[in-house]
Amino acid sequence: MAKEITSRLNDYSQWYNDLVIKSGLADHSSVRGCMVIKPYGFAIWEKMQAALDKMFKDTGHVNAYFPLLIPKSFLSKEASHIDGFAKECAVVTHYRLINDPNGKGVIVDPDAKLEEELIIRPTSETIIWNTYKNWIQSYRDLPLLINQWANVVRWEMRTRLFLRTAEFLWQEGHTAHSTEQEAIEETERMLNVYAEFTEKFMAMPVIKGKKTANERFAGAIDTYCIEAMMQDGQALQAGTSHFLGQNFAKAFDVKFSNKEGKEEFVYATSWGVSTRLIGALIMAHSDDEGLVLPPMLAPLQVVLVPIGKGEDIKKIYEKCEPVIKELKAKNISVKFDDDDTKRPGFKFAEYELKGVPVRLAMGMRDYEAGTIEVARRDTKEKSVQQFEGIGNYVENLLEDIQANIFNKAKTFRDSHIREVNTWDEFLKAIEEPGFISAHWDGTSATEEKIKELTKATIRCVPLNNKQEDGVCVFSGNPSKERVVFARAY
Amino acid sequence: MAKEITSRLNDYSQWYNDLVIKSGLADHSSVRGCMVIKPYGFAIWEKMQAALDKMFKDTGHVNAYFPLLIPKSFLSKEASHIDGFAKECAVVTHYRLINDPNGKGVIVDPDAKLEEELIIRPTSETIIWNTYKNWIQSYRDLPLLINQWANVVRWEMRTRLFLRTAEFLWQEGHTAHSTEQEAIEETERMLNVYAEFTEKFMAMPVIKGKKTANERFAGAIDTYCIEAMMQDGQALQAGTSHFLGQNFAKAFDVKFSNKEGKEEFVYATSWGVSTRLIGALIMAHSDDEGLVLPPMLAPLQVVLVPIGKGEDIKKIYEKCEPVIKELKAKNISVKFDDDDTKRPGFKFAEYELKGVPVRLAMGMRDYEAGTIEVARRDTKEKSVQQFEGIGNYVENLLEDIQANIFNKAKTFRDSHIREVNTWDEFLKAIEEPGFISAHWDGTSATEEKIKELTKATIRCVPLNNKQEDGVCVFSGNPSKERVVFARAY
Repeated sequence: MAKEITSRLNDYSQWYNDLVIKSGLADHSSVRGCMVIKPYGFAIWEKMQAALDKMFKDTGHVNAYFPLLIPKSFLSKEASHIDGFAKECAVVTHYRLINDPNGKGVIVDPDAKLEEELIIRPTSETIIWNTYKNWIQSYRDLPLLINQWANVVRWEMRTRLFLRTAEFLWQEGHTAHSTEQEAIEETERMLNVYAEFTEKFMAMPVIKGKKTANERFAGAIDTYCIEAMMQDGQALQAGTSHFLGQNFAKAFDVKFSNKEGKEEFVYATSWGVSTRLIGALIMAHSDDEGLVLPPMLAPLQVVLVPIGKGEDIKKIYEKCEPVIKELKAKNISVKFDDDDTKRPGFKFAEYELKGVPVRLAMGMRDYEAGTIEVARRDTKEKSVQQFEGIGNYVENLLEDIQANIFNKAKTFRDSHIREVNTWDEFLKAIEEPGFISAHWDGTSATEEKIKELTKATIRCVPLNNKQEDGVCVFSGNPSKERVVFARAY
Repeated sequence: MAKEITSRLNDYSQWYNDLVIKSGLADHSSVRGCMVIKPYGFAIWEKMQAALDKMFKDTGHVNAYFPLLIPKSFLSKEASHIDGFAKECAVVTHYRLINDPNGKGVIVDPDAKLEEELIIRPTSETIIWNTYKNWIQSYRDLPLLINQWANVVRWEMRTRLFLRTAEFLWQEGHTAHSTEQEAIEETERMLNVYAEFTEKFMAMPVIKGKKTANERFAGAIDTYCIEAMMQDGQALQAGTSHFLGQNFAKAFDVKFSNKEGKEEFVYATSWGVSTRLIGALIMAHSDDEGLVLPPMLAPLQVVLVPIGKGEDIKKIYEKCEPVIKELKAKNISVKFDDDDTKRPGFKFAEYELKGVPVRLAMGMRDYEAGTIEVARRDTKEKSVQQFEGIGNYVENLLEDIQANIFNKAKTFRDSHIREVNTWDEFLKAIEEPGFISAHWDGTSATEEKIKELTKATIRCVPLNNKQEDGVCVFSGNPSKERVVFARAY
C-alpha cells in the first residue's frame, strides 16, 4: 500500500481520520475547527447537492440566499431558540483593520466598532423569518417553499473532519404555510426526501423517527430525523426536519390574512442536511484499504489501467476507446490512466484508497485473448471478462455494486439492533456495537439518567412504531412502545 | 402597469433600484449593506453558475472549499495586498454569547475573546496560499487548477443591490503553476472564458484589456479585465483575472522542486466574477417596463396565457399541451398561466416586468382560427402566428431574441465610444454618456489628475491595442496607444 491506514479494529476513530486525509477528501486548516474540503471531497458534495437540489425542486421548492450575518438581538427573539444552541457562535464586533502603529502588520481599528454585534449564522431561522415578515401578507403568498445552500458557523469545541466542524456547508429549507396540517405534511415530506436520498444515493439505510423533547431543535414543536448506523455500531443523525409551529412567526410577528380576511400567525418548517453526510458516507461503507463509494456518488466511477509500455499502451487505448466513449455516453465517468511514471500496483492501491467502484485492467495477454480484468471495489472480487460487451457489463456491475453496498449496510444494521427488556441487558448491550430497542417511560428524567450512566441517547421514536405494552427498561414504569437508544456521533 | 417604475431618463439610478425590487430579484435586509437574493434573482445566478462552472471544468478546473475565516496575521503577509484593500472587513473577535445578567436578551461573553482575531474573507488568496504550501512539493503537483464558489464580505460604505454589497456571492479561481509563461496563459484563458460567458450568455459585449498599475488588484503583477457599457454610458467591470507572479508564493513560502530538482517559487493566478453580474445584466438590457432578460439566462423563457374562462381555458390547455411538451423536450422552460384570479392585462404587465422573453396568448378566436399571439419582450413586437409549427417558431424566436439583445447592446456600445484628441474634447465628451478613447502618457500622476478633475478612470488598456503615435490628452506628452476612459460603477 502506498499510504498506510490504521485498521478499523485497531482504532476506528484513527481509521476515519486516516481515510479522510489520505484519500484526499479534506484537510485541516490554520483556523481552529475549520476544514478545507479538497477537490475529491468537494466532488462528492457536488454530486450530493445535484441530487438533493433536484429532489427539492421536484417537490416545489426554489432557492434563495439570505445574509451570512445576523444582528445579535434577532437570536434572542425566539426564547427557546437562543437557550437551545445559538450561543457558541462567531461574533463580529468591528469592521476595519488599520496598520499597527508599531509596524507589526495590522490591528483592529478601535474606532470601527459596530453599534450592534453581528453573529455569523449558526442557522438562519431568525434572519429568514424577519425577512418573511415583509413577504407575507395574504394566504395568496403562501406556501413559501424556499431552500438555501450556505455555509454556517457553530463554535464547536471538539471538531472532527466532516462530522463536526466550526464551519460547515449545508442546505436549509425554510417554509411558511397557512395551516398546521400543511406544515406537518411538509415536515414529513422533506424527511422522506432525505430518507430516499440517503438510501438511494448514499446506499445508507436509515431509521425515520421523531426526536424526544430533550433532543429537539431549539424552537421546534417536533423534530423528525433520520438515523444511520456506522460500522462501529454508533448512530449518526443524517438529517433533520422540524415542524416549528407558529413559534418563529410569533417571535417575528409574521401574520397573514386568511380567506375569511382574518389575521393568523404563519406555520413554519425548517430542514437541513450538511457536509456531515460525507462523514457518514465514509463511515458507513469504507474498509481498511480505503474508501468504498457507492457508484451514484463516486466522482470517478470506472478507471481503466493499461498494463505495458509505449506502443502496447497505444494499442490498448485504441482497442478500449470505443468502450470509453460508450461508457461516457451512458453518463458513466471513466478515466484511462496512462501515466507511465507509476506502476500498475501503485495505481491499483491508489484507486482502492479513493474508492473507485470499478477498476478495469488490460495487458497484452488480455488484449490478444479478447478479455479484460474487472475488479469491483466493494467486494474486491476480480474476474476476467470477455472484452466484447464490456460496456453493458460495467453498466450493470455499477448497479449491482450500488445495491450490494446498500444491502451490506442494511444487513449489518438489522443484525445490530437488539431488543432488550431489563436494565442488566441494556448495560450489557450498550457495550456491544449497535442500537438498542427498549421500552422507555417517556420522561426526560429517565432519558437523562440513562445518558449519564451509559452515554446512550434516545436516537428517535421510530415513525409508525409498533404499539405494545411494556415497562421502562430503567424505571420499570409502564410504556406503550420501544424507542431506539445508541451512542452517537 | 401593476407596479410603477421610474423611467431611465428621469432617474437612471432609481430606475435600477425600482426594477430590482419590483421584479422580485432582491431585497434589502436588516443587516447594513447585505442583501437578500430572492428566488427569481437567485434563479438567474443559478443559470450563470451552471454555465460558468461547466466552462471552468471544460478548461480543466475542479472545485474545492476553503475556510470563511482568515487569521488576521495572514492578511499582512503580502504587503501590497493588505495596503490595497483588505482593511474594510468584518472582524470576528469573540466566540460566545451569554444571557444578559440584566435580563435583556444576550450579550457577548467577555471571557470568550479570541487570541487572534479572524477576518471574514474579503477574497481568499491568503488562506488558499497558506494551504497550497502543504499541497505543493514537486513540479508533479502542478498545475493546481482550483475554483471555489463562495460568499465574501467587504465592508463597503455605499452599497447598491447586486452592484456593491457588503456580502456577495462569487467564484474565485486560484491556480498554481511551475512557469511564468503558463500562469500568464492561464490568466488570459480565464479572461477569455469570462468574455465568452458575458457575450454568449449575458448578451453583453465587453472590451478585454489590462488595468493600469493604479487599478490593479492588490498583490497582482497584472490585472486583466472585461469592461461593459451600461445604458447610461457608464462602465462596469464585469470580471477580472490576475497574474500574481510569485508574490503570494513568496509571502507564504510555497516552493516546488522542478524537474532538475531545484527549488523555485510557484507562479499564481486568481480570477473572479460575482453576483454583480446580475446588476450588469439588468442595466445593460432592461427598459422602462421592466427586465429584458436574454433567453439563455431567463429563469422562465416562455409563458402561455390563455384568455377566457372555465371550459375555454381547458380547451386551450388541451390544444396547447403538445406544444408545451415539445418546448420542454427542447429544454425550454415554459409556464401555462391559468390563474383565474388575475386578468390577462395584469399578467402581461407582470411578465413584462419580469422580463420573460416570449409571451404566448390564446383566446377562443385564436383557438378557432388555428392561430396564437406571440409577443417578444425585447422589441415588444406582437404578431399572430399559425398554431401549427409554433414549437419550432418559438425555439427560433428565442435564438433571435438572444442575438438581437446582444446586437442592440453592441450597436449602442460601439456608437458610444468617442475618440478624443484634446483636453477640451475630453471634458466635453465625459459629460456625454459613453467611453472615451484617448492617448495617455502612461503615468499614474496624469491618471489620478484626470480622475480628480472628471471622475473618469482608465477602464483598461485594450488587448491587441492598435499602436499609433499620439500625445497625451492631458499632459501633451508622447503616447503610443489609446486607452479607454469612463466613469464607472
